[in-house]
Amino acid sequence: MSEKVISYLTEHHDQLLEKLNQFLSIPSVSTDSVHKNDVREAASFLETYLNDIGFEHVEQRETGGHPLVFAEYKQAGSDAPTVLFYGHYDVQPVDPLDQWKSDPFKPEIRDGRLYARGSSDDKGQVFMQLAVFEAYMKTEGKLPLNVKVCIEGEEEIGSENLYRTLHDNKELFAADFAVISDSGMVAENRPTILYGLKGFTGIELTVNGPDHDLHSGMYGGAVRNPIMALTHILASMKNEEEVITVDGFYDDVEPLDDGERQLIKQVESEDYKASTGVTETVSEKGYTAKEHTMGRPTFEVNGIYGGYQGEGTKTIIPSSATAKITCRLVPGQDPEKIQTLLEQHVQENKPSGVTVDVKKEKLSAKAYKVEPNHPLIQKAAKSYTKAFGKDTVYVRMGGSIPVVEWIEAIYNIPIVLLGFGTPDDRLHSPNESFPMDSFVKGMETLAYYWDEIR
Amino acid sequence: MSEKVISYLTEHHDQLLEKLNQFLSIPSVSTDSVHKNDVREAASFLETYLNDIGFEHVEQRETGGHPLVFAEYKQAGSDAPTVLFYGHYDVQPVDPLDQWKSDPFKPEIRDGRLYARGSSDDKGQVFMQLAVFEAYMKTEGKLPLNVKVCIEGEEEIGSENLYRTLHDNKELFAADFAVISDSGMVAENRPTILYGLKGFTGIELTVNGPDHDLHSGMYGGAVRNPIMALTHILASMKNEEEVITVDGFYDDVEPLDDGERQLIKQVESEDYKASTGVTETVSEKGYTAKEHTMGRPTFEVNGIYGGYQGEGTKTIIPSSATAKITCRLVPGQDPEKIQTLLEQHVQENKPSGVTVDVKKEKLSAKAYKVEPNHPLIQKAAKSYTKAFGKDTVYVRMGGSIPVVEWIEAIYNIPIVLLGFGTPDDRLHSPNESFPMDSFVKGMETLAYYWDEIR
Repeated sequence: MSEKVISYLTEHHDQLLEKLNQFLSIPSVSTDSVHKNDVREAASFLETYLNDIGFEHVEQRETGGHPLVFAEYKQAGSDAPTVLFYGHYDVQPVDPLDQWKSDPFKPEIRDGRLYARGSSDDKGQVFMQLAVFEAYMKTEGKLPLNVKVCIEGEEEIGSENLYRTLHDNKELFAADFAVISDSGMVAENRPTILYGLKGFTGIELTVNGPDHDLHSGMYGGAVRNPIMALTHILASMKNEEEVITVDGFYDDVEPLDDGERQLIKQVESEDYKASTGVTETVSEKGYTAKEHTMGRPTFEVNGIYGGYQGEGTKTIIPSSATAKITCRLVPGQDPEKIQTLLEQHVQENKPSGVTVDVKKEKLSAKAYKVEPNHPLIQKAAKSYTKAFGKDTVYVRMGGSIPVVEWIEAIYNIPIVLLGFGTPDDRLHSPNESFPMDSFVKGMETLAYYWDEIR
Repeated sequence: MSEKVISYLTEHHDQLLEKLNQFLSIPSVSTDSVHKNDVREAASFLETYLNDIGFEHVEQRETGGHPLVFAEYKQAGSDAPTVLFYGHYDVQPVDPLDQWKSDPFKPEIRDGRLYARGSSDDKGQVFMQLAVFEAYMKTEGKLPLNVKVCIEGEEEIGSENLYRTLHDNKELFAADFAVISDSGMVAENRPTILYGLKGFTGIELTVNGPDHDLHSGMYGGAVRNPIMALTHILASMKNEEEVITVDGFYDDVEPLDDGERQLIKQVESEDYKASTGVTETVSEKGYTAKEHTMGRPTFEVNGIYGGYQGEGTKTIIPSSATAKITCRLVPGQDPEKIQTLLEQHVQENKPSGVTVDVKKEKLSAKAYKVEPNHPLIQKAAKSYTKAFGKDTVYVRMGGSIPVVEWIEAIYNIPIVLLGFGTPDDRLHSPNESFPMDSFVKGMETLAYYWDEIR
């Protein structure tokens, strides 16, 4: 059956791409309040498209923040399974803008890749799902199963209102299983089943010293420098062997067993240097880079600032310095406990003469793992292989998708991650892009998958 | 004789203050190219004033950067000594602007202090010198000695072109001694002879990792984080006991002898906490805060930046991180050697997986010390005491004035530092101010001094 669907997608490739480009052209940056209306415009685009496809009860649900787009399709009948499809239409900020080769909101195809913010994370992949639903409606007059659509606008700011929305509307979002397309494959053209995700938490710490910037000649030697104090604190949290030196941080970590280390070996080949330009990779002592990224927790400083950052020299002792820290967690670790350990370490290790304010990241998530042999997973692997003509590999990844943990916690249903991104997509960075090949084969995979499930 | 001069200054106080406010209202920020024309306007203000006073050969000398204002007065005759007066008319940037209680370029008197950028460093003190020359001309019809005026516009950016100008025009600037008013007293109303200044040097270091910002979930665990690498490097340069841990840094330091430690004890009373708001002072192990600020070298990070600094969270591994470092040096230390030691330490202590670019501060200076018993110094002390009605203390200070070293190196003449700033002036910070009391008594001191010298 899915052949007709795939023919439709092939014949309408240009119109679909044109429509995707309209979607990508809307600067729906959720973290920046100046883009508030752009975010709503992206939601309206989806509302219109879902109505055109033939979904029912399409609505932009107010969440207190950016709206959540809901829609459902029940015509497959009560015997057919119901899937909850989740995605997000908001995108990351684009700074530093001057590093983009083309306008992040004017999609452009270069060397077989579609360049635009959100092309991979996650507008592009959301659009592929809807395009396949369109194809089924246009060729079969119906969808192969019942569908509930949940596309939020706050994923890049921690899905602030999603948990409450899902929790307070159990009936509305109830389904037999969930499908999420907000992830990637280990390499271009390498079909990948993602059976595990990392959890996430973080803190922001600000070191406060003098109540104003001081002349370094008049006060240097009498006052603790907040930037130096911050560097001593941060350097005490992770050593040069990439081991996190915060007391108790590893206590609850579920160890990587030999079976998993074998699975990881299959994908160990991927070359981080080529895609990042680093001179050499570094990873936690005793673990390979792949083992660390997939199966071990991480600690990263995402940003730091303090004192004079302009041209030239300004000889001051600054009044404060700030660092933004996030951690990726593995099964067994509790985000709140980790935040508490981080805060304790900071307060216990701060030098004299300064005070430290710790702001805890409001939204955290536990890590997630699913059984690779589950039939819904096996059918996904089969569909991938059929579309890409390659064996499917099974991996855990370092990324975090809080909604996965929440859907599991609230509905306790299987969750299938059907992702088509690639390591070169530059998510969250300048020049984000998505391979046109993944666009085509990804939609084929989805077409096959719904056919398998029906 | 000087009584008439002082009466003139008293009678014309309001007009002089009005004129000073015009000068302070010009935003002559030398480090910021958008203020290029404002800097020239400040130079023109001085050119006009010097002509009005009756100086000869007044000119704005092109330097390749901001102009240097030169003028001379020879009518005191060949028997009278010639003084070279140095000052600067450029000012520090004003950021963070939102911390100013009043517009930095709209002078305002509050609680006996004149608030404006440059009120103390150095426009205010330059103006006092010119006002006293004006008073002498108006009351005695001549100046008590020959004067050469050298007021530059690049002090806050390291006096980039001053050394060459002084070096290539020896005849023009030649004098019997030099007077500089660009320093302060240990406390308000506490006349102070500055017999030593610190030297200065610095480096800017940038740690480079991946060639673009990376998603911390996809690459965390495989790639060295440039911010973490930077914190490890910086933390290895100065420990929590405020001891600089760069090999060889202290090798050439001239030790503080007991005599000097006694001199310093006389001013140890000054309370750093009150003027900075810190919970406690910290200083190099084995030295008091005063000993460290006056007589021991310092190492300060003036600014740091890298990664995401906006609102909210951005889960990236940044591609680079930068720190601006400056050191204050004491007699015996060679700035170039220190830069080399800093660079060696950075390259030898950088973690694997990153590269480090080191930019050396172009302009450095050796420390300076003068014999407290020199007659020109003794006459200065006498004038201070006469004007302020208090004994004069002798101190070394942590500040650096490269021109002092250069004048000594090029002309080998005595240099007298007649400064009237106070520790609460907030130089280089928001809400810079200068006590009106110092404005009045400072001009009296200068009137007495020229009378002593003639």
